[in-house]
Amino acid sequence: MKTSPFISALTTGENPTTPVWFMRQAGRSLPEYRATKGTTNILDAISEPELAAKITLQPVERYGVDAAVLYSDIIVPVNSIGFGVEIEAGIGPVTQNPYTSVKDLNRLEGFDPVKSTPYVLETIEILKSKLEVPLIGFAGAPFTVASYLIEGRPTRTFEATKAMMHGDSETFAKLMERLAEITWLSLEGQINAGADAVQIFDSWVGNLSAYEYDTFVAPHTRYVVEKVKKLSVPVIHFGTNTTHLLREFAKIPTDGVSLDHRSSFAEAVEILGTDRTIQGNLDPILCLTTEGVMLNEAKRVLVESSSASKYIFNLGHGVLPSTSPQMLEKLVEFVHKNGAELRQ
Amino acid sequence: MKTSPFISALTTGENPTTPVWFMRQAGRSLPEYRATKGTTNILDAISEPELAAKITLQPVERYGVDAAVLYSDIIVPVNSIGFGVEIEAGIGPVTQNPYTSVKDLNRLEGFDPVKSTPYVLETIEILKSKLEVPLIGFAGAPFTVASYLIEGRPTRTFEATKAMMHGDSETFAKLMERLAEITWLSLEGQINAGADAVQIFDSWVGNLSAYEYDTFVAPHTRYVVEKVKKLSVPVIHFGTNTTHLLREFAKIPTDGVSLDHRSSFAEAVEILGTDRTIQGNLDPILCLTTEGVMLNEAKRVLVESSSASKYIFNLGHGVLPSTSPQMLEKLVEFVHKNGAELRQ
Repeated sequence: MKTSPFISALTTGENPTTPVWFMRQAGRSLPEYRATKGTTNILDAISEPELAAKITLQPVERYGVDAAVLYSDIIVPVNSIGFGVEIEAGIGPVTQNPYTSVKDLNRLEGFDPVKSTPYVLETIEILKSKLEVPLIGFAGAPFTVASYLIEGRPTRTFEATKAMMHGDSETFAKLMERLAEITWLSLEGQINAGADAVQIFDSWVGNLSAYEYDTFVAPHTRYVVEKVKKLSVPVIHFGTNTTHLLREFAKIPTDGVSLDHRSSFAEAVEILGTDRTIQGNLDPILCLTTEGVMLNEAKRVLVESSSASKYIFNLGHGVLPSTSPQMLEKLVEFVHKNGAELRQ
Repeated sequence: MKTSPFISALTTGENPTTPVWFMRQAGRSLPEYRATKGTTNILDAISEPELAAKITLQPVERYGVDAAVLYSDIIVPVNSIGFGVEIEAGIGPVTQNPYTSVKDLNRLEGFDPVKSTPYVLETIEILKSKLEVPLIGFAGAPFTVASYLIEGRPTRTFEATKAMMHGDSETFAKLMERLAEITWLSLEGQINAGADAVQIFDSWVGNLSAYEYDTFVAPHTRYVVEKVKKLSVPVIHFGTNTTHLLREFAKIPTDGVSLDHRSSFAEAVEILGTDRTIQGNLDPILCLTTEGVMLNEAKRVLVESSSASKYIFNLGHGVLPSTSPQMLEKLVEFVHKNGAELRQ
């Protein structure tokens, strides 16, 4: 573990090989996942430590990636304390009673990782006894979780979220404060149980303008990051479609930022600095094309990544469910074999 | 017409009032549109000059916007020559026989605006006899049209498009060349019939990386823009989610660029220059909130737009179907009343 390329990429930057892992590497694209999980609801699968650990290990065993990422979901903490949000198959997080006023905060009280999500900590303990690569802890960022709680379901337009953000910013801020605290406590629990690094998933934040992000979101994400930093564990900040927010991301003291396929490395490094690790950014759709196309574009990503002195190969977003595992096997092999040379 | 604030904003930049219009100002959000169009298919409505002219005029009469935009659809030219693409209600452009090889170019031959779409030219002639504000001609950009023809239906991931772009770039380029020629001919026809300016709609281009845009798309959009420029009619380039592409957009000699709500004016002006008109960029979702929220954010947009010396107020993307016309009435009134002062 002490020579983990993944951890080195987040600290010293000295790597004989280029580390690689994939967001959603554990999950629907793997036949062994579908066989293991069967028809179990995702939240139920997460709450069974042996099962969740097995699912987390599957891609590590198959692909030889340089990190495991805890099999989880961004609504796990808020679900555990009874907000009343579930994962509906084929849709995503859904609640019949969205957050509409500060009264709804009473459904977001008392989160304690040991009492509320003991299964998460048990899963991590099992994993730590088996893993030979680092384990990445997992949490949704306050904004992305808030958007589900306010909208009641996945959205592309964030109508209710933006109405509250601009029209009743105090009610919005109270939710964000509460979610920031829950996110931090969840990550603290995961780190105490053995997570070697954490990634904060802010999947939908790219819809916000820089003004909206700076005013209504950044202080809460910053709170989480600053708390985690005190535990001396590296923090990666993930969003998609965030080129226009990188100047705001730069102000948050993360160790790494994960870019989607739209952002250019040169511009990102200029904004984020050379001391911060860049992660990404192959377009996941290319893993559905041909091996030739995928590897050619992976090569381009690796060459362009040279502008970042600290670097972790990844896709720009999660593995798409219809991705062939054989393609990802080839991709890991290619990055391990050619990464260091292409990045020279 | 000679003192049109819309045309001034695209030329001299000298405006006593701030011009405003909305993308999709004609259409589903207007009760008079729904009453006029009834259950007529959109392509049929476009092909009836009296009807299409009436629909184009409706928002001008109701809102007092500073420009009319031709009621049309980006697939009108390719549909007119028999590619075999239709608008499916609630879905969008759909074809049973997508473009898969250069053989399919035989379904994209012989476009001539006078012979293929005489109704478009008739619509413009009717409009020119009635309008007191400029008429904006309408065309889909080659990439966005290509994505529909290759995918066969609207997509969020562009799987087939990217597979062809990277894996068979010649077949992709042949389609883009053909579509660029069709786009130019369509715009030439509209300009000859009386269009006072044109907007090129590249709605989905924001999914591309700067490398993809520069290599596979920019030459074809540039071809269209350079041709139109020879007719001395202003050209506006529209895309959404394009902050990461603005450096590429800057290389194309357009008169104006339309920004969505994500882009900041300061950054856009720095990249696009002060001589180019900026259009946008209120988030259309805010028109579904309250009047107070909407106008407060419109105020912010106007203040921030001061960094652009030439400016047209618009939404960042099209009017959402559930938008109340009363909200847009208030918005036009607000911009006309306060724009000049807020932009000082």
